[in-house]
Amino acid sequence: MNNRPEMHALTEQECLDLLPTVRLGRVVFNQDALPAIRTVNFVVDGRSIIVRTTHNGCLARLHQSVVAFEADEVDADLRCGWSVVVLGRAQRITDIDTIVALCDPSSRSWAPGARDLFLRIPVEMVSGRRLTSSDIPA
Amino acid sequence: MNNRPEMHALTEQECLDLLPTVRLGRVVFNQDALPAIRTVNFVVDGRSIIVRTTHNGCLARLHQSVVAFEADEVDADLRCGWSVVVLGRAQRITDIDTIVALCDPSSRSWAPGARDLFLRIPVEMVSGRRLTSSDIPA
Repeated sequence: MNNRPEMHALTEQECLDLLPTVRLGRVVFNQDALPAIRTVNFVVDGRSIIVRTTHNGCLARLHQSVVAFEADEVDADLRCGWSVVVLGRAQRITDIDTIVALCDPSSRSWAPGARDLFLRIPVEMVSGRRLTSSDIPA
Repeated sequence: MNNRPEMHALTEQECLDLLPTVRLGRVVFNQDALPAIRTVNFVVDGRSIIVRTTHNGCLARLHQSVVAFEADEVDADLRCGWSVVVLGRAQRITDIDTIVALCDPSSRSWAPGARDLFLRIPVEMVSGRRLTSSDIPA
């Protein structure tokens, strides 16, 4: 197979447009001085990522921490797709009106248990890359 | 929809068995004191993750750094799947016999450019979780 892949950077707007097209992402943080990652479902609210979690879980402790958030969509057969990475300081949402506004079925965590803690990751920096192949089958 | 999800921890053997079933994962590390993540294709070699990268990229600088490596497979419609996270100290592979043995098409990077640096992430710690739904459509 004569595969000639190309990689190019996405613009900020392309990144922001791609994020809400998927529902699964990954929160990246430090835990006990080691790199850590947790797969989560999420929704986009304006320029923020919203994740619901438990009050006693590892994500609950990220309030005021700078975290990365990654989402991607890659076709392993065609070997093409995109990845977007956000950086922002996570904030626990405490305003009840905001929580009520976010409290619809799309924001509900796929994981079990009471996930009543809403974590906002504002998009302070965003970057992304798209991998394309010139060898896409007809 | 009366969704009753369940989450359970995977055994080490289950994690090791799942990793080679996917080809895409994510290297998680610190960069300039900020959490960073890079989506990569990978192969499993024994109890190690093998990633090919460029000599001047951010992954090349991870030699001797403790990194996390994550892979997952989640069905967003059924809301079930798994995620496995490895922790290990990344090692640049310099032994030419090892490189030749790893140098087959499956290890080739999907990204463009000369990706002649082989990075080994030994599985020093591994954990995983599986999310299941009791509400799987018939």
